[in-house]
Amino acid sequence: MAGKSKRDAMNLSRLVQDSSVSRWDDDVDTLVLGFGCAGGCAAIEAARGGARVLVVERSSAPGGSSALSGGVIYCGGGTAIQRACGFDDSVEAMRAYLMASTGDCPNAEKIDLYCRDSVAHFDWLVSLGIPFKASYWPHNYEPTTDDCLYYSGSEECAPFNRLAKPAPRGHTVQAEGSCMGGRLLMETLVDVALREGVEVMTDANCIALVAGRDGAIVGAAVRHDGETRYIRARGGVVIATGGFVMNREMVARLAPAASRTAPLGNPFDNGSGIVLGEAAGGATANMHAAIYSCPVLNPPGLIRGILLNERGQRFVPEDVNHKRIGEHAVLRQDGRIFLLVDSEIFEQPAGVRPIVATGDTPEELEDELGWPRGSIGATLAVYNRHADEGHDPLFGKKAKFVKPLTAPPYAVFDCGIEATGVYYSFTLGGLCTAPTGEVLNAEGRAIPGLYAVGRAATGLSAQSGGSSGLQLAEGTYFGRLAGRAIAAALKSEAA
Amino acid sequence: MAGKSKRDAMNLSRLVQDSSVSRWDDDVDTLVLGFGCAGGCAAIEAARGGARVLVVERSSAPGGSSALSGGVIYCGGGTAIQRACGFDDSVEAMRAYLMASTGDCPNAEKIDLYCRDSVAHFDWLVSLGIPFKASYWPHNYEPTTDDCLYYSGSEECAPFNRLAKPAPRGHTVQAEGSCMGGRLLMETLVDVALREGVEVMTDANCIALVAGRDGAIVGAAVRHDGETRYIRARGGVVIATGGFVMNREMVARLAPAASRTAPLGNPFDNGSGIVLGEAAGGATANMHAAIYSCPVLNPPGLIRGILLNERGQRFVPEDVNHKRIGEHAVLRQDGRIFLLVDSEIFEQPAGVRPIVATGDTPEELEDELGWPRGSIGATLAVYNRHADEGHDPLFGKKAKFVKPLTAPPYAVFDCGIEATGVYYSFTLGGLCTAPTGEVLNAEGRAIPGLYAVGRAATGLSAQSGGSSGLQLAEGTYFGRLAGRAIAAALKSEAA
Repeated sequence: MAGKSKRDAMNLSRLVQDSSVSRWDDDVDTLVLGFGCAGGCAAIEAARGGARVLVVERSSAPGGSSALSGGVIYCGGGTAIQRACGFDDSVEAMRAYLMASTGDCPNAEKIDLYCRDSVAHFDWLVSLGIPFKASYWPHNYEPTTDDCLYYSGSEECAPFNRLAKPAPRGHTVQAEGSCMGGRLLMETLVDVALREGVEVMTDANCIALVAGRDGAIVGAAVRHDGETRYIRARGGVVIATGGFVMNREMVARLAPAASRTAPLGNPFDNGSGIVLGEAAGGATANMHAAIYSCPVLNPPGLIRGILLNERGQRFVPEDVNHKRIGEHAVLRQDGRIFLLVDSEIFEQPAGVRPIVATGDTPEELEDELGWPRGSIGATLAVYNRHADEGHDPLFGKKAKFVKPLTAPPYAVFDCGIEATGVYYSFTLGGLCTAPTGEVLNAEGRAIPGLYAVGRAATGLSAQSGGSSGLQLAEGTYFGRLAGRAIAAALKSEAA
Repeated sequence: MAGKSKRDAMNLSRLVQDSSVSRWDDDVDTLVLGFGCAGGCAAIEAARGGARVLVVERSSAPGGSSALSGGVIYCGGGTAIQRACGFDDSVEAMRAYLMASTGDCPNAEKIDLYCRDSVAHFDWLVSLGIPFKASYWPHNYEPTTDDCLYYSGSEECAPFNRLAKPAPRGHTVQAEGSCMGGRLLMETLVDVALREGVEVMTDANCIALVAGRDGAIVGAAVRHDGETRYIRARGGVVIATGGFVMNREMVARLAPAASRTAPLGNPFDNGSGIVLGEAAGGATANMHAAIYSCPVLNPPGLIRGILLNERGQRFVPEDVNHKRIGEHAVLRQDGRIFLLVDSEIFEQPAGVRPIVATGDTPEELEDELGWPRGSIGATLAVYNRHADEGHDPLFGKKAKFVKPLTAPPYAVFDCGIEATGVYYSFTLGGLCTAPTGEVLNAEGRAIPGLYAVGRAATGLSAQSGGSSGLQLAEGTYFGRLAGRAIAAALKSEAA
């Protein structure tokens, strides 16, 4: 029997017609695929709206990549914590920053909606019992304490500080231990969901969507315990299965630059839900895009050094978020970057950053690296000339990190992909959706009964997302919108 | 009647089941969608293999974007013309260059195959009567005479000249008038196709593929003369409809960087065939990728100047192909680049390149541009220091273009996207195919009866394609392979 079911599964197309389904094994109002933060919030809101909700999760426990994260949620426009910490933020400033920092074709509609609702959304998270401490963490990396609010992006940095009034918007879930906020977030979402009557089936893998005669999605085929179960979902199916960074064939094919870096996520970030949505007629967007993380300037005193490409040129203000450094390093500098320090700021970087040159003069460094004479010397001269006056007009690094590098000996660390092994990425592309999560086809028309949220969809961080917390923000927020849309549709149908 | 048919067309899904086709209006062995160079060559080889072939073309005449091109075909490994002009080339050198110059994840299988067959393929083109003159054009831009062979890429330039032995591989069809080679190429292909019995239906638009019960493609629905005609194709359907650069919604969604540049192609490069192939289960690859053309260094004496980004830094050896300059300018320099010349090499560039600064010293230029002191000065000092010795060790510009820029006054031209209006792009992504053109699904399995060739498929220039002539090369070559594969399959079926 199990053998036969397995063969059935292998031969099953990703989209089957309901006319070929001989028997429904279960019947729910809403079927959610994946219990990360997006699926969890969709389930909670759908259940609160009166729907019977089943979440099928591929792993043996809920959590997804959300649970592996540090629990940073990007909120702004004047949250209770921002105000308590003395920061003045506005919807307009937040929108301007996200429009400027998320790529060539930012998702204006979703950005606009999220910025307007961000304060209310934060309050909703708090209402679930997710703890946030009203405290500010004055660094540009994730809190290593239980502090909350910090600059999780490059809001304070050039060029964004000229484009939008800066404010810290990274809200970190308060949890014991470093980077445990994501786990606590997910534990809370699971508790709330169960309390609301949401059912969860783990070790369950959706292998096909089921379509009605008109193309509307009316259910799914799920592998569980060696069998294929057909689950009817009269209010629709929500794809919340995460991105595809773990599917290295798909990465090479669609996001090839990310194939040079290590994948960040859980093993089931394999694109399965995106492919299901495509089979049902969903269009995709931004499939090439990824977040590139490379925390090479750690400890942060190293920000006072200068990052060089292999021509000895600077390429970013060194104080930007490590994701922006990563994006520039991978996409614009072929993954080969270096850090130059002098003896005054020298300290051992965290992790492997091989010293590839030392010397009392730029010429000695150039010779040791085999770089042309003047390559480092010219860069250093221009930097020092302005650093003497306490500023960095060429790249706009903030004054507090600017000091002339005039105390030999100098050292150059290799901070590139090959040398360091700390470049990680996850994908940003996914199914095209309306803000309600409805999956859209290539003409922009919704496919009835099909929703996608979280990293299985394209969202706030369209092609670039240099701020930590955007993934959990959009996962939780647009997850909620999808859950509410489904509940509302069920109600109007019943009426 | 026509009204009803039009409604039918509007409501028709892109993939219909043959069980719903009540009547076949025509019955052929092979249906080819699109008569550019790829569709034309597929048709010719299929017809020569004994198949009855129908090509449906959306325009009022065959030609496609191939006919609008300059007629450059990238061939190498020792063609008759290369040998006649005294160039020594090898399959291995050609392969090494294409592997290094076509992106992070080059298509090794297709590159390997094409390099091995390139000489024979060139001979085949000649055998059709396509004229090539055995002459060398000693510039890195398309011949403005009827000359043939030239360096159509960056083979001679850094870093490629260190990675592969250079040879010119751009073979230009001999035609009267500048850039008329593409038209002559297509006229010849049409003549040959008609001679071989290929039928052509113009003003005909494929709106859906027809699938058999097993998912194999067995025909298509074609709009022609106000009616929807169902055409059976027992040997399969070949998608040869070109790329999607004219579909600006699709570009914004999937290749957003290209949305900043003007589209290059014919109006029907709208992605229609790619979308049809996806509806039939085909996977896509490299949908973000595009060719960026920006011929800003014209006349070529301007190559002796230096290109700067808006930090006053150089970023490429100025002697590389304009497509490589374009790619760097758009993807790495935000489309903002400048050209610095001194009085000795000053000449008026072709086209609009506003002079944005003049001065006797770098400082005067910096002040006029509002750039930090030292930004241009440092770059110029390093360049001149090495140019004095006749070389460019930092970027590797060839010695013949290197001269110290030491004759004031200086001028800076704005060569960016906004200022010049000469940045054009076309898309490289498309359906995943085997070298035979068989369209592959996400698991890499062929969809029976479905082929894609030319720019509707992903090919030789995976994510980057800095050499002119690659599009016609792969269109003609892989078009042929698809036609031969179909003919062979029909024969083996008949046997």
